[in-house]
Amino acid sequence: MKLVCAQNNLNSHLSLVSRAVSSRPTHPVLANVLLNADAATQRVSLSAFDLSLGIQTSFAAQVQESGSLTLPAKLLGDIVSRLPDGDITLDSGADSDGGLTTLTCASGRYQMRGMGAEEFPELPVIEDGELATLSAEALIDGLRGSLFAASADETKQVLTGVHLSLQPDGLEFAATDGHRLSVVQMIEEDASPDRSKSETALNVTIPAKALQELIKMLGQGGSSVAVQFDQGQAIFEWTDQRLTSRLLEGQYPNYRQLIPKQFTHQMTVDRRLLLGALERISVLADQKNNIVKLSLDGSNQELTLSVDAQDVGSGRETMPAQISGDSLDVAFNVKYLVDGLKAIATSEVQMQLNTATSPAILSPLGSIKMTYLVMPVQVRN
Amino acid sequence: MKLVCAQNNLNSHLSLVSRAVSSRPTHPVLANVLLNADAATQRVSLSAFDLSLGIQTSFAAQVQESGSLTLPAKLLGDIVSRLPDGDITLDSGADSDGGLTTLTCASGRYQMRGMGAEEFPELPVIEDGELATLSAEALIDGLRGSLFAASADETKQVLTGVHLSLQPDGLEFAATDGHRLSVVQMIEEDASPDRSKSETALNVTIPAKALQELIKMLGQGGSSVAVQFDQGQAIFEWTDQRLTSRLLEGQYPNYRQLIPKQFTHQMTVDRRLLLGALERISVLADQKNNIVKLSLDGSNQELTLSVDAQDVGSGRETMPAQISGDSLDVAFNVKYLVDGLKAIATSEVQMQLNTATSPAILSPLGSIKMTYLVMPVQVRN
Repeated sequence: MKLVCAQNNLNSHLSLVSRAVSSRPTHPVLANVLLNADAATQRVSLSAFDLSLGIQTSFAAQVQESGSLTLPAKLLGDIVSRLPDGDITLDSGADSDGGLTTLTCASGRYQMRGMGAEEFPELPVIEDGELATLSAEALIDGLRGSLFAASADETKQVLTGVHLSLQPDGLEFAATDGHRLSVVQMIEEDASPDRSKSETALNVTIPAKALQELIKMLGQGGSSVAVQFDQGQAIFEWTDQRLTSRLLEGQYPNYRQLIPKQFTHQMTVDRRLLLGALERISVLADQKNNIVKLSLDGSNQELTLSVDAQDVGSGRETMPAQISGDSLDVAFNVKYLVDGLKAIATSEVQMQLNTATSPAILSPLGSIKMTYLVMPVQVRN
Repeated sequence: MKLVCAQNNLNSHLSLVSRAVSSRPTHPVLANVLLNADAATQRVSLSAFDLSLGIQTSFAAQVQESGSLTLPAKLLGDIVSRLPDGDITLDSGADSDGGLTTLTCASGRYQMRGMGAEEFPELPVIEDGELATLSAEALIDGLRGSLFAASADETKQVLTGVHLSLQPDGLEFAATDGHRLSVVQMIEEDASPDRSKSETALNVTIPAKALQELIKMLGQGGSSVAVQFDQGQAIFEWTDQRLTSRLLEGQYPNYRQLIPKQFTHQMTVDRRLLLGALERISVLADQKNNIVKLSLDGSNQELTLSVDAQDVGSGRETMPAQISGDSLDVAFNVKYLVDGLKAIATSEVQMQLNTATSPAILSPLGSIKMTYLVMPVQVRN
């Protein structure tokens, strides 16, 4: 294998795949990145795979000699990222399996010991064509609107992922940690009207970690993303890039039945005002039990937030709100409200409630279809 | 106490003093910030003191009622930093010792329990006038040029600080961790020609932590800084701000005798080129024993850096250098060279050496007077 490429190209693509390099590899080759140079297409592909998350990316290079090999990902990335702009030559010499690869740049040369490409495990593939196609923006919106509600507690297994289910006209994203639930519906770009019933029964749970990497990768641009999944893997594929992830096993909770159909109270309020006040209130709530009290005053069309952290202090903020329904006092874990408001991008949010002990719904006003369910906290007066 | 001030004023000054708030206070009041409002001067001063580091700052406010009190520094800072721009009213009501203080802003009000100002320890003062006056820039240069060489190992006691000694025309800064030494001489703005011998015998060692805070504070501007010290304290004072620090006890090493007077080899090289190459070399050196070999080639006027990390790889970079003296191979801990080159700001650096086993000196070319001494590492070929 011999190729010449630009430092900034190699650097950015190495840093992209580095997220799938195992930090504690079960096999030495998993600490490496697989390089595949093709003289016919004049392209180089890089792959990394920790057996759960896999990332593959490719870019144009002057490939003088086709070939495959693996190099230590961290070592190569650390050297390349410190090189100045300019051309880099990678040459594995005569023997490409396990020998020394030479990196030459304007200022000097480095030699690194790699491993043969044949030892590197292949990234998963799914044979059965595409299942759904979303714009990168829609996919990011769906993930941002759900990921935050997933559990960070590894023992919660299936709750540490986001549940994706195929709908007749798009994808539904759901995440819950047992205390709150967020559901987002995203419409497909070219919804195929003849999606069969057997297909819409397909639903999978993908580890949050893989989806966080997916958001970062998509943030660098990308047009349409093809989403595929079978019973073991999910694959996201777009221009020159591919991310694969194993699925989380286990039955995902039947969350749709948790969402109330009717509400006696409805409130519309400025998202930034509410978020700002909650963040200040949370400073005091942190000192105590994280509880904030919301008092909806229908006659004055005002929402009052209050916190009382005995021995430390207390706080109270009031803001205008459009309220329908009687006055109502209801308490929440302030963190759950803050998380939801941060995941929403609209200028106004809607809150729907029934009683001080039944689930409330927070949703953006005039944007994507997102339903964020939070359980109130019961407090004694 | 009652005052009205701008949110951004109170916020920036609270964050300034917060650095001297004890994270694990030995007395509850040390977790608080002392507020002192003076109706006559229409100013508020804030003080924090962890019994080692003390910071005081003051700013203009509408003081309606003079008074002093202390409030929980983190709580107050966290709330104020989250408030929108606008006026903030602080009112301690009738009883200012230990009662509730009310903070009122446009959106709401907060109450916090404080402690009486009389419980707050006074910040140290030195009676014997100013000793030296440096521009903020000179002080920052002196600290940046020395601080990095101090030991981070708390058991090294006096070596965890920077040694300041009063010179006839300025201040000398020195720091060493036992493996390398950096000495910087800064000239005073208005050197008093009649500084007596007893004064120039004054020298102290100040904890690195306090000096790191000093750099951050000075980075926000400031003109001339008055430096005072006695046998127990150092005080830095400038426009509306003051930092006090206890001194480190113990005899500081007699470092001047370590610096060679004559050299057989001298090299001038581009600082960025050398730093860049060393940072790449260090990626491989990290894998082994951190050793980089420098080969000075007088006949070709070239410097070659090389590293050999067996089983991992090797690297070699060459750059132009002005070299006087015979060719010489000498090895260093790459980290020490990188640290020194980062602390220097000039485009060229000078390196002076004798043999592969005697101390070498790195210094900036055409800037402040800084002497950075590094011991070579002995390697067997």
